Amino acid sequence: MSAATPPPVIVLVRPQLGENIGKAARAMLNFGLTEMRLVAPRDGWPNPAAGPAASGADVVLANARLFDSVADAVADCPHVYATTVRKRGVTKPVVTPEVAARTIRGEAGRSALLFGPERSGLETDDVALARTIVTVPINPEFGSLNLAQAVILVAYEWSKGAGLASPPTVDLDPPGSQDELEGMIGQLDAMLETSGYYYPPDRVPTARRTLRTLLTKPGWSSQELRTMRGVLSALGGKKQPKG
Amino acid sequence: MSAATPPPVIVLVRPQLGENIGKAARAMLNFGLTEMRLVAPRDGWPNPAAGPAASGADVVLANARLFDSVADAVADCPHVYATTVRKRGVTKPVVTPEVAARTIRGEAGRSALLFGPERSGLETDDVALARTIVTVPINPEFGSLNLAQAVILVAYEWSKGAGLASPPTVDLDPPGSQDELEGMIGQLDAMLETSGYYYPPDRVPTARRTLRTLLTKPGWSSQELRTMRGVLSALGGKKQPKG
Repeated sequence: MSAATPPPVIVLVRPQLGENIGKAARAMLNFGLTEMRLVAPRDGWPNPAAGPAASGADVVLANARLFDSVADAVADCPHVYATTVRKRGVTKPVVTPEVAARTIRGEAGRSALLFGPERSGLETDDVALARTIVTVPINPEFGSLNLAQAVILVAYEWSKGAGLASPPTVDLDPPGSQDELEGMIGQLDAMLETSGYYYPPDRVPTARRTLRTLLTKPGWSSQELRTMRGVLSALGGKKQPKG
Repeated sequence: MSAATPPPVIVLVRPQLGENIGKAARAMLNFGLTEMRLVAPRDGWPNPAAGPAASGADVVLANARLFDSVADAVADCPHVYATTVRKRGVTKPVVTPEVAARTIRGEAGRSALLFGPERSGLETDDVALARTIVTVPINPEFGSLNLAQAVILVAYEWSKGAGLASPPTVDLDPPGSQDELEGMIGQLDAMLETSGYYYPPDRVPTARRTLRTLLTKPGWSSQELRTMRGVLSALGGKKQPKG
């Protein structure tokens, strides 16, 4: 692990049961992960059922941060991974926990791992925020991983290399933060709104998702995102210093 | 995996709660292990609490075999591994689940993996039956793996080489042709020419190069390039079918 690579953040998206939040915290701390973020937990936060299930991993729960949206929760993370059980019709790279862990350890910048609600998993819109999908290879005839189990497998894989030295990281600029990416997407979206691009109305959600996927794919750096914003401003007729 | 190597047997030694037997069965089946053996479970066998906790892994419970002693349970297994959380003063090789799994897959003959009771773990006499100890490397300041979690990590490692699922290779579309990319870049370039983006003149070559690098990086597919052209047309005020 590069000294500069912080451990990944575990983001539980709309978790249902406090007990499972506690179990996830326990799973994390077993393998040295301490940073949990919660997006709109169903029963609010704090949740009295979490503590007992954490079996002593209280420090993780005490430091857990609460967010309204996935985008807010990963705003400072240039690398976002969405864990899903099943393949979906998404055109993003799909990797094992092992490969994800190795990649995360080598990245410049912090990674976030998204885990969906117990019953349903991540929504397509949550997955759209991620550049990469993590899928645990599982018995095709019996796939029944619960939330804490999915968390523990990923944390376990991450921990394997956490103590090891690996070659110093990359001279590529890391992707900009999720915040910066959102800023650029938002600017384009506003321009397209007024341009008549989003028509007919029933195709708008799909069109938005397609664009998001396409613009998330490059992993543009902060500098590149600024350049894109300059391009958009020029196209929109606004004078703006270019990146 | 050698075709001759059967999957390992999971032996739960004096398990206390039926619920944990069920969870262990679920953990096993997720990764393709089906053979469970029980040594003197505290509350007898069958145990009505096991079924609900197995979440559908009933076949594992239905086929579980009951034994009075560890020696009986592993009598047909030439390779016995004892899982322990902490290192003990035993003079046996200690390996990670990863190494154990690799070894098991390469062995001639069946392997058994022993897991101790929830609270206390395996006794020294149980460990004495094993040739090798398996220990999960864990946070030295917080080691709190439960029985099903220990089982799932070992089963997961075993499954890696078992030819089970790996994530489906993605049907990511390949990048569009250079021609298509040039078409999109050309369209943007023409729009930027008239927008005043390319100013001052001495910076034009650098600005063009920067943009080209940025737009080449994504490796957009033909479809994505068409979408981008639709976006540009909309921004330029031209009506055009979007991609």
